Amino acid sequence: MSDRRVDRLTSLLRRRGVVLPSFELYGGVSGLVDYGPVGARIRRKVMDSWIDHWTSHGDIVEVDSPAITPESVLVASGHVGEFNDLMVECGGCTGAFRVDHLIEDSHENKNSLSPEELVAILSTGIECPTCKESKWSDVRTMDLMFSTQIGAMKGGRKAYMRPETAQGMFMLYPALFRHFKQKLPFGAIQTGKGYRNEISPRQGMIRLREFNMAELEYFIDPEDPPCPSLNTWSDSIALVPDPDGEHSGECLITISEALSAGIVRHPTVAWFLARTMDFLINVGIDSTRIRFRQHASTEMAHYADDCWDCELHGEHGWVECVGIANRTCHDLLSHERHSGSKQLKAWRQFEEPRSEIRDVLVPNGASLGPAFKGRAGKVIEALQNLTEIPEKMPFELTLTDGSSVQITDEMATRRSEEVTLHGEWFTPHVIEPAFGIDRIIWHILDHSYTETEKEGEKYSIMRLSSNVSPYDVAVLPLFDKDGMGEIASDILSRVNSMPGLRGEMDSSKSIGRRYARVDEIGVPWAITVDHETLKDGSVTVRRRDDQKQIRVMVDDVLLNLGTGTVSTLF
Amino acid sequence: MSDRRVDRLTSLLRRRGVVLPSFELYGGVSGLVDYGPVGARIRRKVMDSWIDHWTSHGDIVEVDSPAITPESVLVASGHVGEFNDLMVECGGCTGAFRVDHLIEDSHENKNSLSPEELVAILSTGIECPTCKESKWSDVRTMDLMFSTQIGAMKGGRKAYMRPETAQGMFMLYPALFRHFKQKLPFGAIQTGKGYRNEISPRQGMIRLREFNMAELEYFIDPEDPPCPSLNTWSDSIALVPDPDGEHSGECLITISEALSAGIVRHPTVAWFLARTMDFLINVGIDSTRIRFRQHASTEMAHYADDCWDCELHGEHGWVECVGIANRTCHDLLSHERHSGSKQLKAWRQFEEPRSEIRDVLVPNGASLGPAFKGRAGKVIEALQNLTEIPEKMPFELTLTDGSSVQITDEMATRRSEEVTLHGEWFTPHVIEPAFGIDRIIWHILDHSYTETEKEGEKYSIMRLSSNVSPYDVAVLPLFDKDGMGEIASDILSRVNSMPGLRGEMDSSKSIGRRYARVDEIGVPWAITVDHETLKDGSVTVRRRDDQKQIRVMVDDVLLNLGTGTVSTLF
Repeated sequence: MSDRRVDRLTSLLRRRGVVLPSFELYGGVSGLVDYGPVGARIRRKVMDSWIDHWTSHGDIVEVDSPAITPESVLVASGHVGEFNDLMVECGGCTGAFRVDHLIEDSHENKNSLSPEELVAILSTGIECPTCKESKWSDVRTMDLMFSTQIGAMKGGRKAYMRPETAQGMFMLYPALFRHFKQKLPFGAIQTGKGYRNEISPRQGMIRLREFNMAELEYFIDPEDPPCPSLNTWSDSIALVPDPDGEHSGECLITISEALSAGIVRHPTVAWFLARTMDFLINVGIDSTRIRFRQHASTEMAHYADDCWDCELHGEHGWVECVGIANRTCHDLLSHERHSGSKQLKAWRQFEEPRSEIRDVLVPNGASLGPAFKGRAGKVIEALQNLTEIPEKMPFELTLTDGSSVQITDEMATRRSEEVTLHGEWFTPHVIEPAFGIDRIIWHILDHSYTETEKEGEKYSIMRLSSNVSPYDVAVLPLFDKDGMGEIASDILSRVNSMPGLRGEMDSSKSIGRRYARVDEIGVPWAITVDHETLKDGSVTVRRRDDQKQIRVMVDDVLLNLGTGTVSTLF
Repeated sequence: MSDRRVDRLTSLLRRRGVVLPSFELYGGVSGLVDYGPVGARIRRKVMDSWIDHWTSHGDIVEVDSPAITPESVLVASGHVGEFNDLMVECGGCTGAFRVDHLIEDSHENKNSLSPEELVAILSTGIECPTCKESKWSDVRTMDLMFSTQIGAMKGGRKAYMRPETAQGMFMLYPALFRHFKQKLPFGAIQTGKGYRNEISPRQGMIRLREFNMAELEYFIDPEDPPCPSLNTWSDSIALVPDPDGEHSGECLITISEALSAGIVRHPTVAWFLARTMDFLINVGIDSTRIRFRQHASTEMAHYADDCWDCELHGEHGWVECVGIANRTCHDLLSHERHSGSKQLKAWRQFEEPRSEIRDVLVPNGASLGPAFKGRAGKVIEALQNLTEIPEKMPFELTLTDGSSVQITDEMATRRSEEVTLHGEWFTPHVIEPAFGIDRIIWHILDHSYTETEKEGEKYSIMRLSSNVSPYDVAVLPLFDKDGMGEIASDILSRVNSMPGLRGEMDSSKSIGRRYARVDEIGVPWAITVDHETLKDGSVTVRRRDDQKQIRVMVDDVLLNLGTGTVSTLF
């Protein structure tokens, strides 16, 4: 067995039921992992923390849309035809590889290379990592989406498993706009699975074919972007600005200074950098191993205008775990063009009404009233807000509630006149923080994993934050006899009945081996029930991080467990 | 517009952002729904309640496995080749239909019919529901799974989107067995998406192509099944026993009586019926609209030996929402046969050791010790527990931790002798409660939706349990001026900072219209900030269910909100 720390950690995660290769009974499938009995609870706590973090703001809500996505949506988003990688097969071992992976040691910034440049570098004698030959097939494009079909036969439609959760939120923009009473800014979050049919997945949890995503779309008026105060964040953070820009070179600086200096270009993006930092530290990421790297102009998606990757440092070097992008109006505008929907806009009220000469349709109340009754007011409003006057009557008029009515000749009169404009419709901009939850969990585990020694033997402790520990406490009867097991069961029930708390009980093997196991899976506290407990109700409480033990009454430790204050007993 | 209650409810759910058709901008896809800003939180609370409900037991843990599943797993589970429906196309309108749907008015228990019987009934002149013709194509079989491919080209593998979450848990049985220190009973839960490529989805949330599942696999020793006391459940519940059995006919009876009478055949199944009832009532299902229907022997899967559907009554009649099945050893045994794994068993300790004459391998400590060092004990244990002695040396020996070692000639001696057996390996049985979360949410909404009148106009109230309400409280500034908006914002922040609580603020339109909206989405409490609040810090608190209003100090209502005791103020 290899003696690298990354292998020892991976082996621990597997042995202890944290993260395991999927479908191992059938030989496994690379790029798919299971969260086992220990890991699934860590995953849930990380997801829940993320959801709480954003929904506590008051203007951000959760939504949930399907992973199966019809092709038309992903044509509009640009994924169909563009979401792919260049691959080659090796003439020696027939293995398939991504071209950018093969050349990554030979070029610093592979994301900025064109397909032609990639191929050129490949032909300079790059070796196959498996068989060391240099006989490459022609380069071809591989679609990175998992494709499927909805329905059957004549009614069948081509579809894909979503490559990101974002599109589902753009689809729900009209519902969100209604929910927030037509007032920007507001945001939506979605968590769930994303899919990417990688050619050659590797690096364990870093590059998965099915992964846990958590994305936020924050819709703003670009002329009036939210500028929350950044004074709360007085700690410096590591920034790596655009290498082609005027601020190139890593710096350690507060968010507020970075915004004033023009390194971070958008005030709302700056605020999301700060809040992302908060979240990561809250779930146990080491703050000294976080940095934000700004995309070079050559690397940035064509529509985006300020993009930052939040990178975490661990066994795989610096890895992108969060992307924060100002996507401008790109997504909503593209869906408006492809779907023809009129519902992807927001209303901007002018501070002062403006005058303009233009064609208008003057509503004819005498005809509209009887025709639409209670809705006539809405129809008149929509007529007055029309930005483009249709050439011909009758035409279809869309109301603010999304429904539409037919307007005939007698209902409105065309006239050219000076109009007073109270506001205008526009396409909101979107700031998108997108989190790769599996990568974050990997780094939580990596940063928590501590190798030490105990009585001359190797000893591992997973120093997980109690915010994400798989159990809040382990309950250990010293022996499973004389009623100690029953008392331990009773303590476990009391723990499990407290909101949000979960304990586990273990009566196997020696107490030393049981302590070692709970240290390895990151349980912060252990309660041991022994002969004295039978007499006086006291228990031993053991702290994972320094293995210190104290003697406390069981009622006291449970009370402190409920309030998160066990450490005050020490 | 149709004037049926089900249509009014569906329209409310859509208008208020609870549940909406997916991808409507692109014409929609039948069988896919979105949970909007209001519904997604209801969904999350139902899911969280479900997870809490089961994990509080102490011997049930959560796991999480991928939705993409390689073909081999679903061949073993029986889904490939068996998970399909019979369909026909109409010669008139070319619509595709499920044969069992077409004939369901013509036959009472369609689940018990063979394909030949279905076709025979179809040819008796059943009309197309769309065009009323009776010209049917040949009947064919449609695969109900969404298929896809993992990887590309030579390395590509056929795969499906999982039709249930259960298989992922069977895959993790070895990790669960280790986690629970090789001691039955224990259980695993998994929540997530399931997929079913329906031919003709209908009935809104009842028959979806992508749905929210929540399943539990409880592994037991069939010779020593858990028999928890049923005395806690003294209420009678509605049972519809097997129509072919001796107890046919609906009855109202306690679970404990049903078990004694032999209606429920398995003690662990009985306990799961009771706990399922608890869960449903806790999330707001009307207890008088729950019944448990036992499968007829003809309808039951061939491997199962006591199956119950929990049916809920609503706008679509009685609908199966939970299935509780004793699946015996079927699944683990089938995976053992298909995968060749030796890790799908459990150990049963005999009360008294038993003697038996048989071939044994006597471990040779002098050779095993140096070869395996610290692991030698485990190797000896595994040698002694071998049930089948291999014909030839050397051979591969699997240890209890799942690893394997090679045993050579000198490490053990073959002998025929009287052995003392301390126990035996066996395949655990599985009790599986499987919950259709979307169907349950539909019935929560259906049972909560109340149509009433107010001042001569129709008025709707969604009487959701506070356990699943989308917001815990609405904060409403009477006007958005004189600082009322700021005070409301501050109250909202205080609400959102309390664990698990979420409020929303609404300052649009008249207070009456805002109350009507929060009643429609089921918010149990509203706090109104008005001119008096500015003077003395008191607010109006309004109760959704009887619309009663009281005047309270804001600190008092927040305190009571945190402890779930606002009703004591009234």
